[in-house]
Amino acid sequence: MLRVAVLFSLSAALGWVQPTDSSRPAASNVRDAEYPRIHDDLRITFRVKAPGARKVQIDPGGEGSGLGPGPFDMARDADGVWTVTTPPAVPGFHYYFLLLDGTRVSDPSSDTYFGYGKQVSGIEVPEKGTDFYDAKNVPHGEVRACWYNSRTTGQLRRAFVYTPHGYELNPKARYPVLYLQHGMGEDETGWGKQGRANFILDNLIAAGKAKPMIAVMDCGYAARAGEAPVSLEGGTARIVEGLHRITEVFEDVLLGDLIPAIDARYRTLPGREHRAMAGLSMGGLQTYQIALTHLDKFAYIGAFSAPVLWGNNFDPKSLFGGVFSDAATFNQKVRLLWLGAGTAEKGFYPGIRQFHETLDKLGIRNMFFESAGTAHEWQTWRRDLHDFAPRLFRD
Amino acid sequence: MLRVAVLFSLSAALGWVQPTDSSRPAASNVRDAEYPRIHDDLRITFRVKAPGARKVQIDPGGEGSGLGPGPFDMARDADGVWTVTTPPAVPGFHYYFLLLDGTRVSDPSSDTYFGYGKQVSGIEVPEKGTDFYDAKNVPHGEVRACWYNSRTTGQLRRAFVYTPHGYELNPKARYPVLYLQHGMGEDETGWGKQGRANFILDNLIAAGKAKPMIAVMDCGYAARAGEAPVSLEGGTARIVEGLHRITEVFEDVLLGDLIPAIDARYRTLPGREHRAMAGLSMGGLQTYQIALTHLDKFAYIGAFSAPVLWGNNFDPKSLFGGVFSDAATFNQKVRLLWLGAGTAEKGFYPGIRQFHETLDKLGIRNMFFESAGTAHEWQTWRRDLHDFAPRLFRD
Repeated sequence: MLRVAVLFSLSAALGWVQPTDSSRPAASNVRDAEYPRIHDDLRITFRVKAPGARKVQIDPGGEGSGLGPGPFDMARDADGVWTVTTPPAVPGFHYYFLLLDGTRVSDPSSDTYFGYGKQVSGIEVPEKGTDFYDAKNVPHGEVRACWYNSRTTGQLRRAFVYTPHGYELNPKARYPVLYLQHGMGEDETGWGKQGRANFILDNLIAAGKAKPMIAVMDCGYAARAGEAPVSLEGGTARIVEGLHRITEVFEDVLLGDLIPAIDARYRTLPGREHRAMAGLSMGGLQTYQIALTHLDKFAYIGAFSAPVLWGNNFDPKSLFGGVFSDAATFNQKVRLLWLGAGTAEKGFYPGIRQFHETLDKLGIRNMFFESAGTAHEWQTWRRDLHDFAPRLFRD
Repeated sequence: MLRVAVLFSLSAALGWVQPTDSSRPAASNVRDAEYPRIHDDLRITFRVKAPGARKVQIDPGGEGSGLGPGPFDMARDADGVWTVTTPPAVPGFHYYFLLLDGTRVSDPSSDTYFGYGKQVSGIEVPEKGTDFYDAKNVPHGEVRACWYNSRTTGQLRRAFVYTPHGYELNPKARYPVLYLQHGMGEDETGWGKQGRANFILDNLIAAGKAKPMIAVMDCGYAARAGEAPVSLEGGTARIVEGLHRITEVFEDVLLGDLIPAIDARYRTLPGREHRAMAGLSMGGLQTYQIALTHLDKFAYIGAFSAPVLWGNNFDPKSLFGGVFSDAATFNQKVRLLWLGAGTAEKGFYPGIRQFHETLDKLGIRNMFFESAGTAHEWQTWRRDLHDFAPRLFRD
């Protein structure tokens, strides 16, 4: 029965005895993993077997992580099983790492989520009374992996395309399109996996709160054919310069390769009035850079926690091709300029709020959305999408 | 510029100086990770920074892994960077782990692949002269995440659905369907990610070697509504019993929930002559169990490295409802019974070959495919699909 022994060796060996309290395995765990567990008061118990380690910690990821500052030291039992219960967490999705004697690795009990330029652990902390991003009993759209050739990069690229429920059943219907970008260190999987964008849109569309739309989630990183990828390491100046260079290339990908591919393959509604762009953090910066300089292509613009890199040096005549220099023209063209930030986003919230107020003073029509109590994390961006999407493609 | 510092902290920090030899980063790495690197002779250099660890090893996964038996001890440099170059590997995809002082974790430089019931590292070793699973410059189909309600499990389930190129452009065309199952410890992501099933089918279809078809990749694990998941831990008897119980539930999911959902949503060709089922390892066993007892539903059957659990106790009158008891009826109904095994699959190959010979003696029409030199790993199953798919849905 060697073959059965072999099969056995392939099966999961993450099981722990289920405790008798009312805590539950996190929804972000891999199938059947009993830990991490969320308690009623949103404390979280993490557990990992590492008999050979001398020090094991939970290391929260991200600015002002909803897990708390950490790292949290775990305590070892006689079998080499390490456990810690962390203080009540902020609801939402939080990246985290396991520190094994100081080395950052993933928790084998967690599913993995692409962030920090690699596959890392994440924990889903439920928010009481909030179900707008749950997989509810409503008709569901699809998320399609779509491969397209990029002349800009000389490579085959993958984008994810959300098509709403009914797309297949209504072969003559055409739909508006939202281009939706991830943040730094993330990729085209982020909005579906961490962001639950498809479930947010499913729920809004089913409730009649948002128009049925296609959402395209591509990777914001791009390098021209034959050129090395732009480094985002180094000092502040280099990272800002790198961001601009990556965005210049991604602009060509989006406008020259992706939009034509999407319009050729899917039943899209043509024209700027049926096209939106939004993004979070780096993706928000890319949205500013690309959409604001191409108002012939986009009428709806969303910047979720986008860094205000120009700070106090705001010059409406030069920023983004001078798009803010003429409020009347801007307001006539742009159907929606939507800015969002979480109130716990140190380093982002004040600048974004100030930018909103500056735009107001200039007479540039825009709106500012505050996500109460959330940091530079996905719960902010889920709430952003939930507020933003219903405002799109209104006649 | 705190906001830039924050962005910076989110960017990748996996970079290593690129060596001057001709080795290349593995295609299975995360973006921009320079290690692991594959040498021309298929030796592999692994590298990880772990200054606090006392012992770091590379632990190959799977029976007879193409990486070699391992574990391979890594050597530490003064900065705490650990390196090892392993012997020439067998081409294909191999799971592996990092052992940090004995604890199995993922290599942060690797993308993650769902196997062993969790997200683990994998390495893609190229096979010279073989490109049937490459993303080539041919028209590409889509892989769609499709959510459906299962009455059997009482849950929303996700399946991946490959639709061939042209599906969108030919809104009246209908297609045959292949149901394609993963192995133990894996899930519905396996055939797309590790197996590259979509690229294999893209290439076959573009070359006119396989008929355009839909392929549905679901999760083979299922538990009835209100019941706890069946454990696959314990001794041989328990695991075999557990496999049968899981398959009984999955049978109801597949026949009662999934096929009706696929037939309702996609332009499928109805009837058994246009429906195939195949699976690898546990999925092959599930294919035997489900398809052989439902020849009214399936005319094409593929068992890739399926364990021959009945061993020498083969009784044609009782096995799979006695389907092998009447060769003439069987041969009239079944258009293809396809068995595959890798010659390096200890514990699988001999039994599968013997089963094929037994079926031959009974006059049961079947074919046996040998994958030369490959073990119980994905390269075997990629070759299987590449040989199997062209034989499907032939008039």
